[in-house]
Amino acid sequence: MYTLYYAPGSANMLVHLTLLECGAPYRLERVDLDAGQQRSAAYLALNPNGVVPTLVIDGVPHGEAAALAMLLVERHADAALAPAMDSPQRADYLQWMLYLANSLQPLFRQWFYPGDYLPAAGEGIKEAARIGIEACWSRINTHLATHGPYLLGDTFSVVDLYALMLMRWSRNMPHQAITWPHIAALATRLKARPSWRRLCEAEGLTEWA
Amino acid sequence: MYTLYYAPGSANMLVHLTLLECGAPYRLERVDLDAGQQRSAAYLALNPNGVVPTLVIDGVPHGEAAALAMLLVERHADAALAPAMDSPQRADYLQWMLYLANSLQPLFRQWFYPGDYLPAAGEGIKEAARIGIEACWSRINTHLATHGPYLLGDTFSVVDLYALMLMRWSRNMPHQAITWPHIAALATRLKARPSWRRLCEAEGLTEWA
Repeated sequence: MYTLYYAPGSANMLVHLTLLECGAPYRLERVDLDAGQQRSAAYLALNPNGVVPTLVIDGVPHGEAAALAMLLVERHADAALAPAMDSPQRADYLQWMLYLANSLQPLFRQWFYPGDYLPAAGEGIKEAARIGIEACWSRINTHLATHGPYLLGDTFSVVDLYALMLMRWSRNMPHQAITWPHIAALATRLKARPSWRRLCEAEGLTEWA
Repeated sequence: MYTLYYAPGSANMLVHLTLLECGAPYRLERVDLDAGQQRSAAYLALNPNGVVPTLVIDGVPHGEAAALAMLLVERHADAALAPAMDSPQRADYLQWMLYLANSLQPLFRQWFYPGDYLPAAGEGIKEAARIGIEACWSRINTHLATHGPYLLGDTFSVVDLYALMLMRWSRNMPHQAITWPHIAALATRLKARPSWRRLCEAEGLTEWA
């Protein structure tokens, strides 16, 4: 039994979707970000960085959404959410997970919290983030055009769940992800999965749901 | 036999160190970034993003440094550079790899190439990156103080190699990583390993070597 500390629509979405796709038993604990619950002593004891998600596994709390998703995929190998270690697709799996973690997701942090480190630079940081995010979508769209329909080709994987979360995060941007046609086709395909409907219900998501 | 396309001191360092620690056979191909070789048709055929490193595995080129390091660790499990999949430390391993990939390394991209997406915002982006990088070192130092001496505790791992590369990248910053004492102790420990000396020789690194 896992316990997922979440805030609706946050980075926990990737972990939540992975739990659902794994068919793993879990319970949810909501963290009220508006009330600052992530900075409470109780939550900081679970997650010293004061961010969501936290996943409690066998009584031990862990953080970092993409890492948690990769861990769940390993622990529930029967769900086949990633190529096995001896698969020729293994390199592509790791490459795309790390690309999303290293290139695309950090730009969203800047888009949503541009003034975090230097408020005076916020406006420029936000605009640079927008340009960077669009460059990433463009690259992903080009990849899907020839290597799709999923990010790893014919096979659905946790990489798609990661991309779906990031697509949703772009929904109020000047050019949201589904402006790119091959990304839109992937979004439609992924949103037709039961895991997406169950996620939206459980987290109470109505926008882009 | 692996082939690593590299530029001295670049993100290939992580892959190169991992190859050395694995004892894997490899050959090096230098990419002359100053001459723009990363944008040549020949290199773009290997790496469509035009960045180093590229690692050719069984004749197939792959990118994304942290992903390549994780892949090598899996392929050379006998080198024990990461906790096994059934280890209780597995979550920590993934968490720290993803933390470095998601939080720290992207800030270096902004520190070194602040005007990439929006030249006018470059100055603010660079300064915000400096503040963010220092916040990350501070967090890592605090972790090492109580959970060190390595990032995963008593056990050396590929996470340390990743951190060592990033430490070196900070060497000309106002507060380089080894300003923090527990990070300095880790650096000393890691630089005493034969892999570091061999890396510096092979890539021709003299500064911070």
